[in-house]
Amino acid sequence: MATVKLISVEEASPEIKQVYDDIRATRQSDFINNAWRAMANHPELLALIWYKAKAIMGPGGALDPATKEMIYLAVSIANGCEYCIHSHTHFARQKGMNQAQYQELLDIIGLATENDQYITAMQVPVDEEFKADR
Amino acid sequence: MATVKLISVEEASPEIKQVYDDIRATRQSDFINNAWRAMANHPELLALIWYKAKAIMGPGGALDPATKEMIYLAVSIANGCEYCIHSHTHFARQKGMNQAQYQELLDIIGLATENDQYITAMQVPVDEEFKADR
Amino acid sequence: MATVKLISVEEASPEIKQVYDDIRATRQSDFINNAWRAMANHPELLALIWYKAKAIMGPGGALDPATKEMIYLAVSIANGCEYCIHSHTHFARQKGMNQAQYQELLDIIGLATENDQYITAMQVPVDEEFKADR
Amino acid sequence: MATVKLISVEEASPEIKQVYDDIRATRQSDFINNAWRAMANHPELLALIWYKAKAIMGPGGALDPATKEMIYLAVSIANGCEYCIHSHTHFARQKGMNQAQYQELLDIIGLATENDQYITAMQVPVDEEFKADR
Amino acid sequence: MATVKLISVEEASPEIKQVYDDIRATRQSDFINNAWRAMANHPELLALIWYKAKAIMGPGGALDPATKEMIYLAVSIANGCEYCIHSHTHFARQKGMNQAQYQELLDIIGLATENDQYITAMQVPVDEEFKADR
Amino acid sequence: MATVKLISVEEASPEIKQVYDDIRATRQSDFINNAWRAMANHPELLALIWYKAKAIMGPGGALDPATKEMIYLAVSIANGCEYCIHSHTHFARQKGMNQAQYQELLDIIGLATENDQYITAMQVPVDEEFKADR
Repeated sequence: MATVKLISVEEASPEIKQVYDDIRATRQSDFINNAWRAMANHPELLALIWYKAKAIMGPGGALDPATKEMIYLAVSIANGCEYCIHSHTHFARQKGMNQAQYQELLDIIGLATENDQYITAMQVPVDEEFKADR
Repeated sequence: MATVKLISVEEASPEIKQVYDDIRATRQSDFINNAWRAMANHPELLALIWYKAKAIMGPGGALDPATKEMIYLAVSIANGCEYCIHSHTHFARQKGMNQAQYQELLDIIGLATENDQYITAMQVPVDEEFKADR
Repeated sequence: MATVKLISVEEASPEIKQVYDDIRATRQSDFINNAWRAMANHPELLALIWYKAKAIMGPGGALDPATKEMIYLAVSIANGCEYCIHSHTHFARQKGMNQAQYQELLDIIGLATENDQYITAMQVPVDEEFKADR
Repeated sequence: MATVKLISVEEASPEIKQVYDDIRATRQSDFINNAWRAMANHPELLALIWYKAKAIMGPGGALDPATKEMIYLAVSIANGCEYCIHSHTHFARQKGMNQAQYQELLDIIGLATENDQYITAMQVPVDEEFKADR
Repeated sequence: MATVKLISVEEASPEIKQVYDDIRATRQSDFINNAWRAMANHPELLALIWYKAKAIMGPGGALDPATKEMIYLAVSIANGCEYCIHSHTHFARQKGMNQAQYQELLDIIGLATENDQYITAMQVPVDEEFKADR
Repeated sequence: MATVKLISVEEASPEIKQVYDDIRATRQSDFINNAWRAMANHPELLALIWYKAKAIMGPGGALDPATKEMIYLAVSIANGCEYCIHSHTHFARQKGMNQAQYQELLDIIGLATENDQYITAMQVPVDEEFKADR
């Protein structure tokens, strides 16, 4: 249950509808997922986040869409965001993440999280070698 | 300053030295970074983590080494682990992450973190469509 | 489903009932929300937290009650606590947070979280100017 | 030590300099703090974040600038971002947060964090009353 | 709803079944909880985590099983992992954590979290005395 | 560098000095660590936290002091609080945590963190069996 109303296509103001239409055209699907319906309570935010997400996560650029979604998913898992984990597992699969890649993704996340904790626990100082190479 | 002693190559027991030697051979470098020197206080842990890291992060598998390091780095940034951010920014660059990829990585992390917070703030319920596709 | 029993008004011991009565009198409402019913398994904790919450979050002091609730809500969103987000969105609205303030609150949280991540990702050193002014 | 170069005013490209000039004019100070110097490695990001921060954190709107900074600071403390804590403690004081307000801010943060943990520990279910009032 | 299939005993491959059998024999119970059924999608991971968990959390060693479970639970509460909080509250009770110990555990977690936040908020520098004693 | 002044014994007001004296008497040591010197800017908070910490972490109760410190340390590591990790590694050792216990503590923390992440990543639903036993 959201703390705000989820705004349907029928209830959308023209300002919101313009963004919804672009989401549908970009994804070639009628489906508007709940994240956008919640953000629509704040139409400027909806537009800001959608066009930013479209630019960053779309094709083109230095990383391919499936890799981008795997990075996004890794961040969402680290943040413990239930909605985001479901939606970006979906999008990563849709954009081509296969089962072997998903397993490696989970293995890297498990390894990184465990190591990060050991290093934090022992307060390991940063090596000079790592500082030198920006 | 670590909460444990950082064990140098000279101080290493034969059990530790065997792992240090494999780290050096795998990386083709004499440098043993502080994370391993700290873990060496617990030699079984050192071996466990090193061989696991070598298997997961190495070449071969479904994801290439630079992509793996970028996912690892994304997790370490989300966890706020200073050491891990420095070391895996280094390793990602060493394994081929270029400047354009680094910028996209940061953009995805920024976008994901911001969106995750909005979605958490509004407690958006998971769409049935996302639950259906495992 | 809680990991402990939720203690109703009928089941409350005199020690618990005294706190429940003060919650009701303070809020001018019969409703005792689940957080207190869970804490009542540990009556000393219930009393400690309730009287502390009443003193900190009540009227009087340097910040007004709606501002206090917005700060509390910001912390709970950052902590990803589902119950706390629902209850303190409710309390903030009840104490006067209007829709425009809620949207600004979310905008600040989104901005802060995103920037914190960029700064953590790049390990930006603290400016001397900021250290000098305590 | 940052993982990227901190770009000084002298080294700034015209695109970066334009943002630096607006930061200085807005703040009526020559000082460009390190967060912007780090973001300048990615000029589009620098512009995006600066103009967004200026719009959200500036005067005007439903919350006053000191309140905005206190919310920002609360988020940064919850995120454990050292740089952000130093810089936004500075900005909150500069924009008028007094000592009594700072103490109340810390008290609310302490209370919220402690309660959030108890509630998470006991997995308290959300009351229907809180779900009903969006 | 999991993002992966939960693999039942009947559906288990011989590789998975071997681990399931060891879980049942070790716990002297037929019950295989969902965490293992989810990990079984990645049989090597299932085996790795189960045998590691069995070695670390079992009897023998320097800490008793109930203490180990309380530490595990404290970490899971800090991480906000719903499943893990339910399962390890269960296991801690099963291995002997009594009600008084559970209340002390929650009190320590509440105290530590609150203090950690105050110290982070004020960016307290580490005393030399603490650095000297590894 | 703290965001507040660290108040020495010489600068302490009578109200602060009373708490400092109790810290010294309780610990049988003249040393007042920086956490208390920072909290002394807010004398009521100093008293509240100190007497609470003394009651919870002291001898007596259902858990022994070394176990209590290990739980506190586990929470502080999960929270990534540098100061708290240093101080409570110190206190845990001082109260009797030996090297074997410290290694097991780190192993449990590593295991719990890794598993919590896998379970969060796969959004594993809580078993009915775990919900039934409060």
